[in-house]
Amino acid sequence: MKKIINRPETYVDDMLSGIYAAHADQVRYVNDDLRCYCTKNKKEGKVAIVTGGGTGHLPLFLGYVGDGLLDGCGVGGVFQSPSAEQIYEISKAVDNGSGVLYLYGNYTGDIMNFDMASELCEMEGIKTRSIVGADDVLSGEPEIRRGVAGIFFMYKAAGACADKMGSLEEVLAAAQKAKDATRTVGFALTPCIIPEVGAANFQLKENEMAMGMGIHGEPGIWTGELKKAQDIAAECLDAILKDMPMAEGEEVAVLINGLGATSIEELYILNSSVSKILKEKGIGVYRTFVGEYATSMEMAGASISLCKMDSQLKEYLDYPVNTPFYCQK
Amino acid sequence: MKKIINRPETYVDDMLSGIYAAHADQVRYVNDDLRCYCTKNKKEGKVAIVTGGGTGHLPLFLGYVGDGLLDGCGVGGVFQSPSAEQIYEISKAVDNGSGVLYLYGNYTGDIMNFDMASELCEMEGIKTRSIVGADDVLSGEPEIRRGVAGIFFMYKAAGACADKMGSLEEVLAAAQKAKDATRTVGFALTPCIIPEVGAANFQLKENEMAMGMGIHGEPGIWTGELKKAQDIAAECLDAILKDMPMAEGEEVAVLINGLGATSIEELYILNSSVSKILKEKGIGVYRTFVGEYATSMEMAGASISLCKMDSQLKEYLDYPVNTPFYCQK
Repeated sequence: MKKIINRPETYVDDMLSGIYAAHADQVRYVNDDLRCYCTKNKKEGKVAIVTGGGTGHLPLFLGYVGDGLLDGCGVGGVFQSPSAEQIYEISKAVDNGSGVLYLYGNYTGDIMNFDMASELCEMEGIKTRSIVGADDVLSGEPEIRRGVAGIFFMYKAAGACADKMGSLEEVLAAAQKAKDATRTVGFALTPCIIPEVGAANFQLKENEMAMGMGIHGEPGIWTGELKKAQDIAAECLDAILKDMPMAEGEEVAVLINGLGATSIEELYILNSSVSKILKEKGIGVYRTFVGEYATSMEMAGASISLCKMDSQLKEYLDYPVNTPFYCQK
Repeated sequence: MKKIINRPETYVDDMLSGIYAAHADQVRYVNDDLRCYCTKNKKEGKVAIVTGGGTGHLPLFLGYVGDGLLDGCGVGGVFQSPSAEQIYEISKAVDNGSGVLYLYGNYTGDIMNFDMASELCEMEGIKTRSIVGADDVLSGEPEIRRGVAGIFFMYKAAGACADKMGSLEEVLAAAQKAKDATRTVGFALTPCIIPEVGAANFQLKENEMAMGMGIHGEPGIWTGELKKAQDIAAECLDAILKDMPMAEGEEVAVLINGLGATSIEELYILNSSVSKILKEKGIGVYRTFVGEYATSMEMAGASISLCKMDSQLKEYLDYPVNTPFYCQK
């Protein structure tokens, strides 16, 4: 295992210490627990949005806490859920009197703990609503799909709606709208290593890729020879557009996400193919995001997400945001 | 070689096509040459800043072209210099009538081509000045040092000064000031592969790191067992502070830069150690930047840069910028 760390057991806390040291002007933790991560900028009356999930996916999840996006994040162990108590403590700290939206990925442990936190909040008189990201097309039927990089569009929509002082139901509806419009397909070129395990839980040969692999290494739909960028792009877009058909003249936002070890150069090479294919199909591109939005530590690979645009989603997407990890004017 | 590409020969152009497709609202190319990369936002009378260098270091170099930073970038082949003609064509396109500052890394091919471009510009009546980044402490004596991630601070200072309508001499002085105040030490955990070569030009064993290695794989000062984050941080800071002594009470900006394949989590773990050591030494941290600022494709590793602050450099550093690759409010 080749990582810049001290000890596997201190991985999460060392990382969080480094984040708080770097960004003390923007974020803080509550309840004397580094893993209860909150924005420093409260806004009276604004619906608060809380996310959470396992460590190992930066900038997901905590990187989206900040102005115009989210208010708090429960930080779990590597690939593990934060606890219900942590989510509850964060909710109390960030609630501005207008309720809290829970917006996170569709994973069993997270659902259980966010649901328990929700019950604890209700007892305190804090109203909550929940919605899960489930954009990973190749992981199964819609209701069991995993949440991956496409959650970015849900964050943007909900974050903008909340910052514009939408009600809890309106913020939920904004997230739901982005969810309905978003699909992702990803693929891995290498595995990653959980620090406390110390070895990869699967292997890919030197010439192999895994199409549809999840961000925790969940098996994909095929493992085989590494394809060219243009063929990978075509296959990903086929899967997305089969699931979310689009007519000529419609518009999308494109997110090309790196899984951690893949160079930015390769992500743009992939985007070159994606943009050509969409153009051939007559699908317009309203805006393109390229970079690391949801990673798996040092996994090599990428994902392609499309979010079908309408005027409201465009407005949400263009809404300025500023967090320690993500800034958009 | 496990990369998301089409063919090694089209690597640079495919990448550039993907960039122009994604960011057509902000950047363009001139002279019918994808490698003549320019901002779309001209500002009458502003000193223009042109950079350039080999491909394979994104967001360096072209990623810093945009509002509040640079105006143009000559894009070379992988780890190769752009041509004098390309730099000259870019200079003509971005000149706003107040001269052009050339700001790039201290590499022989780049120096030769920027100098030739400068001569071509003088013949056109375009005034130029040049300054090279040379922040890599372990690469030798100051005059032969390589330019690495610390060039970010030079870009920020020169970019802010130019945007505030400083004269060519003032913009040069701003860059010089940041240069004098900046030192970097880097280390690699894995090599990277030049696409057209297809194999790494050096190897590191599973438990090895290379201290002081350059961003093109130039040999470092030692290769040996991978150390703990805190020991790496201590060694890097020792080398920096030996070269640029600082007194208790002085302040720095810190840049923790990932070389490409290293996870964001690890960069923050490294920052946790850096911030602790600086605190112990009584050196204040004015601002911390963590992420990928100057990479070597899929090389694993990182670098630590310090920029010694004064009130003017703080102002330059806090100046808002917006490029397709880097946004700061």
